[in-house]
Amino acid sequence: MKIRGTFLDEISHDIPHQNWGRKEWDQDFAYMKQAGINSVILIRSGYRKWLTYPSVILMGREGAYQPPVDLVKMFLELSEKYGMDFYFGLYDSGRYWVNGDFRKELDLNKLLVEEVWQAYGQMPAFKGWYISQECSRNTGTIIDMYAGLGEHCKAVSGQLTTLISPYIDGVKNISQYTSETARTSGVSLKKHEKDWGEIFAGIHNAIDIVAFQDGHIEFDELDDFLQVNKQLADKYGIRSWTNSETFDRDMPIKFLPIKWEKLLLKLLAAKRAGMEQAITFEFSHFMSPQSAYLQAGHLYNRYQEYLKELE
Amino acid sequence: MKIRGTFLDEISHDIPHQNWGRKEWDQDFAYMKQAGINSVILIRSGYRKWLTYPSVILMGREGAYQPPVDLVKMFLELSEKYGMDFYFGLYDSGRYWVNGDFRKELDLNKLLVEEVWQAYGQMPAFKGWYISQECSRNTGTIIDMYAGLGEHCKAVSGQLTTLISPYIDGVKNISQYTSETARTSGVSLKKHEKDWGEIFAGIHNAIDIVAFQDGHIEFDELDDFLQVNKQLADKYGIRSWTNSETFDRDMPIKFLPIKWEKLLLKLLAAKRAGMEQAITFEFSHFMSPQSAYLQAGHLYNRYQEYLKELE
Amino acid sequence: MKIRGTFLDEISHDIPHQNWGRKEWDQDFAYMKQAGINSVILIRSGYRKWLTYPSVILMGREGAYQPPVDLVKMFLELSEKYGMDFYFGLYDSGRYWVNGDFRKELDLNKLLVEEVWQAYGQMPAFKGWYISQECSRNTGTIIDMYAGLGEHCKAVSGQLTTLISPYIDGVKNISQYTSETARTSGVSLKKHEKDWGEIFAGIHNAIDIVAFQDGHIEFDELDDFLQVNKQLADKYGIRSWTNSETFDRDMPIKFLPIKWEKLLLKLLAAKRAGMEQAITFEFSHFMSPQSAYLQAGHLYNRYQEYLKELE
Repeated sequence: MKIRGTFLDEISHDIPHQNWGRKEWDQDFAYMKQAGINSVILIRSGYRKWLTYPSVILMGREGAYQPPVDLVKMFLELSEKYGMDFYFGLYDSGRYWVNGDFRKELDLNKLLVEEVWQAYGQMPAFKGWYISQECSRNTGTIIDMYAGLGEHCKAVSGQLTTLISPYIDGVKNISQYTSETARTSGVSLKKHEKDWGEIFAGIHNAIDIVAFQDGHIEFDELDDFLQVNKQLADKYGIRSWTNSETFDRDMPIKFLPIKWEKLLLKLLAAKRAGMEQAITFEFSHFMSPQSAYLQAGHLYNRYQEYLKELE
Repeated sequence: MKIRGTFLDEISHDIPHQNWGRKEWDQDFAYMKQAGINSVILIRSGYRKWLTYPSVILMGREGAYQPPVDLVKMFLELSEKYGMDFYFGLYDSGRYWVNGDFRKELDLNKLLVEEVWQAYGQMPAFKGWYISQECSRNTGTIIDMYAGLGEHCKAVSGQLTTLISPYIDGVKNISQYTSETARTSGVSLKKHEKDWGEIFAGIHNAIDIVAFQDGHIEFDELDDFLQVNKQLADKYGIRSWTNSETFDRDMPIKFLPIKWEKLLLKLLAAKRAGMEQAITFEFSHFMSPQSAYLQAGHLYNRYQEYLKELE
Repeated sequence: MKIRGTFLDEISHDIPHQNWGRKEWDQDFAYMKQAGINSVILIRSGYRKWLTYPSVILMGREGAYQPPVDLVKMFLELSEKYGMDFYFGLYDSGRYWVNGDFRKELDLNKLLVEEVWQAYGQMPAFKGWYISQECSRNTGTIIDMYAGLGEHCKAVSGQLTTLISPYIDGVKNISQYTSETARTSGVSLKKHEKDWGEIFAGIHNAIDIVAFQDGHIEFDELDDFLQVNKQLADKYGIRSWTNSETFDRDMPIKFLPIKWEKLLLKLLAAKRAGMEQAITFEFSHFMSPQSAYLQAGHLYNRYQEYLKELE
């Protein structure tokens, strides 16, 4: 099981920014390439008022701030330079869909998708879309929102690949603004299966790949949940990746790089479940040799040793 | 809008110490100089029982610990070497004024001011005083304390410059010992204006410069609050700097360097409000190329690029 | 007062892992040696399902995960290479004794001690045992557990040295999963003395050395508590070390390296109390020149300067 993709955590809303310029990002794409990564996924193009590119739609309608750099353009250029596939992450308002207005989130993003495709669609690395609204349960009209977003992305772009990365509502699904790291109970396997059966039934024509986050459950629950995820996705013809998180959810400091042993354990569980490949949230803070968190560089070395053992 | 001054966070009470010796501090002053900084402000000369210099007053009266190094002497020497103005931060008991005994805080600091001026007043870099008790509202006899402290500093030192750096009681005014980063409501602009009108009326003969902290409010509230601050200070003949914080108040980890985009946005708001210049809390943890937080060095590079664009 | 030993924080349950391989650990032992350290103490050989060596007992009975590396073997080899004494830390279930079942914790560890001695007992650096269950009060049958563990370790290994490192139930005894750093009251000196009089009376034949942690009380309580600890241990013929913690318990970020001034103050208090020597929790995160926390390297330099002053 290899990590073939990583999120790009711009805009971050909970991981402190590294303040990299183009030179550092170029170097980071080189490090990714050396680790076998061939896809980068922009986690979101905007969050509340913060933007990755100067979106006329969002500056006009949401009062978003003019960004000092066009990160979308830069990431597309670097993706092309390093032969990577770039997935564009949609706008997360942080409020409309969170407060139940899934329709508004959908409509706003439809305009965004058109704007983005107009501006960047001709760039060769633009290979797919990431629906950035992270969910876990079948609540409200989340199915309509996901299906609507996926369909619109595909319609506008000539059927480019669409990706979602939901989480499991497990014992470690805890606000990052709480100092605790776990709660007494999470979703049951049965309820999780029921919810995602319903969701997949509603979105399977609009979404090509699902990459569940693997960090919200206990390590000894991994096999059960990953296998259910894989079987459900198979049933609906959706491809399965695993989003193997490279930060540690068990520590008082939120968030620093994960212990290699834990990552390895998760990758092996994904292999047993038959996942196609792994992606990770995310390389640049938690696995990169130039990360501000020096534990990340050592994780990179441990992962490279693992790749050699696989050969 | 340029950053021309920085606090020196000794004694820190919430930012982990870097354990620098004289060599590292000398290097840091060199980095500051290269970024256009010409003033350093000791955040406080003592906090509870921890001291920056061996104060007979505080070791005797407060049971303070004998410090292993005389940081005040070292900072004054380095300031002279690098052509910087040094502002001496008063003692913060962490208890008298906090518990309503403003008089005791004042009286203790009067003795301290005399002791300090006796010991270091002849050193050429000693150019001003920083009243270290941070406040936000017109509570108790805070006006008498501020006025008394400022007047005494001036009287003892031949009218050297006095500086305060209050905060705005905004939505991000949250204990650093809470894991949350925001609360639902902060002070209204109107109430803030009323309080500071009263405070300025009472202290304007004793305080020369006010540098409000810019991190406790939402980014889209900056223009309103900064303009009120500037107009009020102008009315009372107080000079206005902005204390543009270089750490990020929006993150679960408290506190790491701020994203450059956020700092830029705050500096531009300060420019629009007509602030004379910026200072920051603080260079050595959050902007220095040798900071233990590697994000800081990248912030330094982004800031240097910004300075070049201004030329 | 010199630091002559350090814990090895594997398995950590609250300090993020550095992801070091053998090369980095070898270098770290070299750094330790240069700082005068001659003993390393494995904090625990396993915690819940995480192991430092492939224990058949724990994989079989506790469903523990197969570890990717045998850290016990590696640490013993490095200890031999650098002439250090290695203390083996017992298994901490994180549940049996925590929930009152001291007997189960004891019985499981008895098997473990036999397994470990069989596997590694002939390696020359194996010089002692560390009873890893940290306690503070005389609760349940903690005395029976400690005595039983110590006696069994000694019986199996030909009377090798046994060590415990309890904590003081002071104002800073706060969950690491809480964002606060202190509470309003801790154990009284009198109650602490009473509890430890009882505990020492029950374990003194099984435990050779006690190294109380020094970080849970206020700095101005150190002299009182350290002296009580020393006198009580003397009374029962137990040797006294101090476990001088090198991380800072007063900061919102849990946990980063301590300020040198605080460590110095604690070491001097231990000297006044007549402690035999200091050990620390722990070198590799908080004092090592290659720590991911760069403050640690500066602490190392400050400590080396202090050693030179002692000469």
